[in-house]
Amino acid sequence: MIVRSKPRLQDILLTVNGSILPRIVGKLGLIAVVSAIAVLAAQEHPGIFARISAIPFTLIGIALSVFMSFRNNTCYARWWEGRQLWGELIISARSLGRETLLLPEDERRELLRGVCGFACGLAARLRGQSEIAAIEPWIDIGSEAEVPNVTNAVLDRMGRRLLTLMQEGSITPIHYSVLEDEIRSLSKVQAACERISMTPVPFAYSLLLHRTALIFCVMLPFSLAGSVGWWTLLPALLIAYTFFGLDALGHELEDPFGFEPNCLPVYALKRTIEREMLSLLGERDLPPPMKPEKSILH
Amino acid sequence: MIVRSKPRLQDILLTVNGSILPRIVGKLGLIAVVSAIAVLAAQEHPGIFARISAIPFTLIGIALSVFMSFRNNTCYARWWEGRQLWGELIISARSLGRETLLLPEDERRELLRGVCGFACGLAARLRGQSEIAAIEPWIDIGSEAEVPNVTNAVLDRMGRRLLTLMQEGSITPIHYSVLEDEIRSLSKVQAACERISMTPVPFAYSLLLHRTALIFCVMLPFSLAGSVGWWTLLPALLIAYTFFGLDALGHELEDPFGFEPNCLPVYALKRTIEREMLSLLGERDLPPPMKPEKSILH
Amino acid sequence: MIVRSKPRLQDILLTVNGSILPRIVGKLGLIAVVSAIAVLAAQEHPGIFARISAIPFTLIGIALSVFMSFRNNTCYARWWEGRQLWGELIISARSLGRETLLLPEDERRELLRGVCGFACGLAARLRGQSEIAAIEPWIDIGSEAEVPNVTNAVLDRMGRRLLTLMQEGSITPIHYSVLEDEIRSLSKVQAACERISMTPVPFAYSLLLHRTALIFCVMLPFSLAGSVGWWTLLPALLIAYTFFGLDALGHELEDPFGFEPNCLPVYALKRTIEREMLSLLGERDLPPPMKPEKSILH
Amino acid sequence: MIVRSKPRLQDILLTVNGSILPRIVGKLGLIAVVSAIAVLAAQEHPGIFARISAIPFTLIGIALSVFMSFRNNTCYARWWEGRQLWGELIISARSLGRETLLLPEDERRELLRGVCGFACGLAARLRGQSEIAAIEPWIDIGSEAEVPNVTNAVLDRMGRRLLTLMQEGSITPIHYSVLEDEIRSLSKVQAACERISMTPVPFAYSLLLHRTALIFCVMLPFSLAGSVGWWTLLPALLIAYTFFGLDALGHELEDPFGFEPNCLPVYALKRTIEREMLSLLGERDLPPPMKPEKSILH
Amino acid sequence: MIVRSKPRLQDILLTVNGSILPRIVGKLGLIAVVSAIAVLAAQEHPGIFARISAIPFTLIGIALSVFMSFRNNTCYARWWEGRQLWGELIISARSLGRETLLLPEDERRELLRGVCGFACGLAARLRGQSEIAAIEPWIDIGSEAEVPNVTNAVLDRMGRRLLTLMQEGSITPIHYSVLEDEIRSLSKVQAACERISMTPVPFAYSLLLHRTALIFCVMLPFSLAGSVGWWTLLPALLIAYTFFGLDALGHELEDPFGFEPNCLPVYALKRTIEREMLSLLGERDLPPPMKPEKSILH
Repeated sequence: MIVRSKPRLQDILLTVNGSILPRIVGKLGLIAVVSAIAVLAAQEHPGIFARISAIPFTLIGIALSVFMSFRNNTCYARWWEGRQLWGELIISARSLGRETLLLPEDERRELLRGVCGFACGLAARLRGQSEIAAIEPWIDIGSEAEVPNVTNAVLDRMGRRLLTLMQEGSITPIHYSVLEDEIRSLSKVQAACERISMTPVPFAYSLLLHRTALIFCVMLPFSLAGSVGWWTLLPALLIAYTFFGLDALGHELEDPFGFEPNCLPVYALKRTIEREMLSLLGERDLPPPMKPEKSILH
Repeated sequence: MIVRSKPRLQDILLTVNGSILPRIVGKLGLIAVVSAIAVLAAQEHPGIFARISAIPFTLIGIALSVFMSFRNNTCYARWWEGRQLWGELIISARSLGRETLLLPEDERRELLRGVCGFACGLAARLRGQSEIAAIEPWIDIGSEAEVPNVTNAVLDRMGRRLLTLMQEGSITPIHYSVLEDEIRSLSKVQAACERISMTPVPFAYSLLLHRTALIFCVMLPFSLAGSVGWWTLLPALLIAYTFFGLDALGHELEDPFGFEPNCLPVYALKRTIEREMLSLLGERDLPPPMKPEKSILH
Repeated sequence: MIVRSKPRLQDILLTVNGSILPRIVGKLGLIAVVSAIAVLAAQEHPGIFARISAIPFTLIGIALSVFMSFRNNTCYARWWEGRQLWGELIISARSLGRETLLLPEDERRELLRGVCGFACGLAARLRGQSEIAAIEPWIDIGSEAEVPNVTNAVLDRMGRRLLTLMQEGSITPIHYSVLEDEIRSLSKVQAACERISMTPVPFAYSLLLHRTALIFCVMLPFSLAGSVGWWTLLPALLIAYTFFGLDALGHELEDPFGFEPNCLPVYALKRTIEREMLSLLGERDLPPPMKPEKSILH
Repeated sequence: MIVRSKPRLQDILLTVNGSILPRIVGKLGLIAVVSAIAVLAAQEHPGIFARISAIPFTLIGIALSVFMSFRNNTCYARWWEGRQLWGELIISARSLGRETLLLPEDERRELLRGVCGFACGLAARLRGQSEIAAIEPWIDIGSEAEVPNVTNAVLDRMGRRLLTLMQEGSITPIHYSVLEDEIRSLSKVQAACERISMTPVPFAYSLLLHRTALIFCVMLPFSLAGSVGWWTLLPALLIAYTFFGLDALGHELEDPFGFEPNCLPVYALKRTIEREMLSLLGERDLPPPMKPEKSILH
Repeated sequence: MIVRSKPRLQDILLTVNGSILPRIVGKLGLIAVVSAIAVLAAQEHPGIFARISAIPFTLIGIALSVFMSFRNNTCYARWWEGRQLWGELIISARSLGRETLLLPEDERRELLRGVCGFACGLAARLRGQSEIAAIEPWIDIGSEAEVPNVTNAVLDRMGRRLLTLMQEGSITPIHYSVLEDEIRSLSKVQAACERISMTPVPFAYSLLLHRTALIFCVMLPFSLAGSVGWWTLLPALLIAYTFFGLDALGHELEDPFGFEPNCLPVYALKRTIEREMLSLLGERDLPPPMKPEKSILH
């Protein structure tokens, strides 16, 4: 996530860091070259170009805006749902902390360290890293390391412990159901994160919009070159910047758990949970909260 | 579901597999032919065509974009809700696995195999295949094979078992209500999937948009031919590609549980559940996760 | 609900059944006549018409598209919410069937027949028919026939029975709360269906859009007649078809429980519930599922 | 709420009652006068007006449509949420009626009369009338009349009674939690209605859109007068009718609990609750349901 | 929050207070200067400017409207979710008040003062002030002042008290779970407010829209100057007012808990909670409700 204050006037023009510009500079160059070719060709053969009307391009451009807006809406909704899910993780972690306050100290330690292990495992799973390596500092997973879904095994472990506590009579069945609700909520967070991470926006959508946007931006200069000459460059580049920029941004937000600058700060959220859980367990020496590097919080 | 990484520049132009292009190539051909006729006719009778203005077409085109965007929104929402429902199925399956950890081994086996049977039955039901054949490898359905809704009968079976366990005193009433909540959640997944599968977007909507899009794309070349000559082909085909493509895509997403390339990977999701349930039952020899065939995961 | 497969090319052009066309053919005729008058007037007095520009009409048309899209969105959301509510009714009916599996046979019969009575009563209430006549085949409502809300009285009856079972000790308080949850869910379905049915989209919205669409479509030919002559008919009719069609469709979806072709198949859904409940009670001789008549499922 | 059937063709043109027209007739007169001035000025100084192009106005008009649509969406969502909340109030009232069926008669009477008092108090609170006067016919509020939130005090009273019943052992703790859930749901309805009523759409939004719409409609005639002469009046008034009308409607829906024609029929909903509660208490002499006055239900 | 009635005609033109105008007056001045330069340049070199067509600008302007509308939608949704969360806080506070009515007086006082402390702590946390200073007047936080999340520690305190009451047998486990539900709901409000407050809309979005809007408004006068001369100022300023205004408003709503005029009245909401809690505890001398200062409620 990019952490910046509202851009002032000069920032709007000059900011590069945090902008989508570097990602699309190649395509913008292509459009610039095409525009130059169109203008030169128009000066050579004015007859042909005079006939190309801008009206069909207005039509395509507007249709493209409407559909692009739909795609951006969708990708943003995925990103924001991802953030909401990690918010729910925090709620369940804190609630587990609160609802186990009077449990025996070592039971409680196991459960809260389990929450940390779960958060670390989920972060690793979503970012394609080793879940086992992420979980091990918190709990001893032992034989469960072989199961297809190690992060879920952490929840099974916590669930087993709660069932045992209920069977032993340490907690009432109602208290069990209150605590199990939190575990179920963690389970929901995991499955929903996996859903977002493994089910992208239908590929044909992205492809159709990529294609239409590219063909449109390449053709546009030819429709303008005949009438406005070298001024063609300005609107052609501004339109290309807007369309390619929103397309690239939509792509970044589509997988909100990745490493790209606009993705969610999964590690920072995980650290928040670690700090709060350790503090609940009475530790004084907490790991520091994560800081943005070059305005980016990971 | 189509499984591909973000298209690079050359992919955008050349990818056929995963594109919606093959599905609409016939209609695009029609538009090309109509465009050619329009241009030839315009060269023959320039007087008539000079009078056709492009402005009413801009108006229709924009209105069409707005309404098409509404339809796509709706179809995408159905597709994504379908995915969410299978996500809930996974949550309930995992939670049932966790909440039954201390039940007697054979009771637990029955319940978790029931979950597998339910997932297989639901997948078969949504894809118009034999539910009984899908369920039988997991549980012995016996006389229930005659009821109108076999997949729901699997849940009834699991519910009956839970009620018996409660009556016998093996689980407390609260524990029963926690487990029954998961069964109810599976029931909800089934009814909601049936809702999406059996209630399409109102037919008159689709028909009205199909018709308007087709008439619009057929008429457009005539409005351009008089002024831009053979250049007509370019915008006419680009617009037809966008409108027909989005229409075809909307149609694919409308029934998210089908077999078309952009439909949900129902079998792969079902396999995920089978693998996790079997692993929870201590099996080592799990069926492998499904792999995409020609970039398509079924 | 109209039950049809995706229209093929010839269907798009020729389908009448299931189309919105018959409903708006009168208004389309009006627009055709107005167009003809406009063209004839333009040929008589070319000077006046040459001055009417199409640009303000483009502006009105786009604004109208945006607002019409908003209304359609709203009406579709009402229709889909109506379908979701009947889906919830099915979930609760199945869950009640499952959760009462071990109750005494006659208690269970009363409850499940009560669900059928409720579904029939609700369907009758939403479609303006006699609730009492619809409920009586299922349960003996007796003195409750006088209360202002007979369908709700069915739920009261079921609730009273559950309370009695709990007081007698036949079910535990927890089991009561699980079953009462299903009754409450049925109650929610009823109140939400009544909400949709009795609170239309604000009348002034519909009126404003009807008016603007009508005036716009009547005025449009005059803006085109001067420049495109008899070609005026084509865009004028296409635009009128789109706007009037979407307006009529929106009106059909606004009250999703009615009898119009695109309304929800309330009777078919009711029949589904009856079949499943009777099957749960061990009946073999089930009423057949409803079939579409002339592609329409009621 | 305006209660009318779908307008027929003549209604569309002639209906005044239920239309937004009376509310905006002053502004429309202003636009008519401005248009006349513009036309006369254009006839006097044709040179100046010939230079004013309509294109920037198309741009502003489209932008305005998009933003206006956003505002209408928002206001409609508030109105519909208001209706949903009163629907939830009805669900909770009916459920309380059902779940208390076996309580001692006088306890039940107190609770159900409490629901009526709550509904009346909430209606009065939302419409700026005396809560105490509205509640007193139903329950004797006594010393609670002094608290800052009298309507909430009714819920406190009901909650205290339920707690007492539980402490006395008349109801089990589970039954208490089922009943308390309904009270909490009433509490949620109140807080959410207060939220809608006391937090309008940000003032700067409304102001910006009011301003832009007014300046736009005043300037538009000047851009048309040069080319279309007295025809200016038609599009100028149609556009002003659409924009001013939607703006006024949005304003009516923004506070859905008010007295304006398109506001929710809060009194009729309250009466529905009174009738059902009294009928549950065995009364025969129910107050009649409310009838629309001049097509408006209050 | 700005508290004003609907603006009358003169207000629309003259209101400054509550308008977004002061915030964007600098940028509007820039556009005025650029417009003047464009007109003067066009008078000097009419040949060059005659060639600049307005059509590409229409296209960019419409695309910008569509994307801007998306951003405003998003920011408004954040603002409204913020308001909903504080509404939930009020519901939980009132419900806690009701559900603890029969607890021992001093236990109840601790819990309700805890709610006030939580509301004050959350308000301080969201507005970047000292949480400890805000909480201390209500409860003695003692050693908990050192933990990373002091406001959450207030909930832990309340949760511990409830667990103790359950262990002592003062409340039943069910009653505990009802009360703990309210605490969890407060916990959810806190985590969701932190989510909105700490995760802004992706920076690259805002930057891309700021940039495109600025470049567009600077370039627009050049496209108009050639044809409409000094009239350029009017549409250029109106468009700049709309785009810059909505951009600035979106920025204000993006962080709904700030101090800017259109932000939520967090302090007034907090005061409402304090008043109701103190009144429930039998206090007569309540702090007065907050009043708007210069039409702004903080």
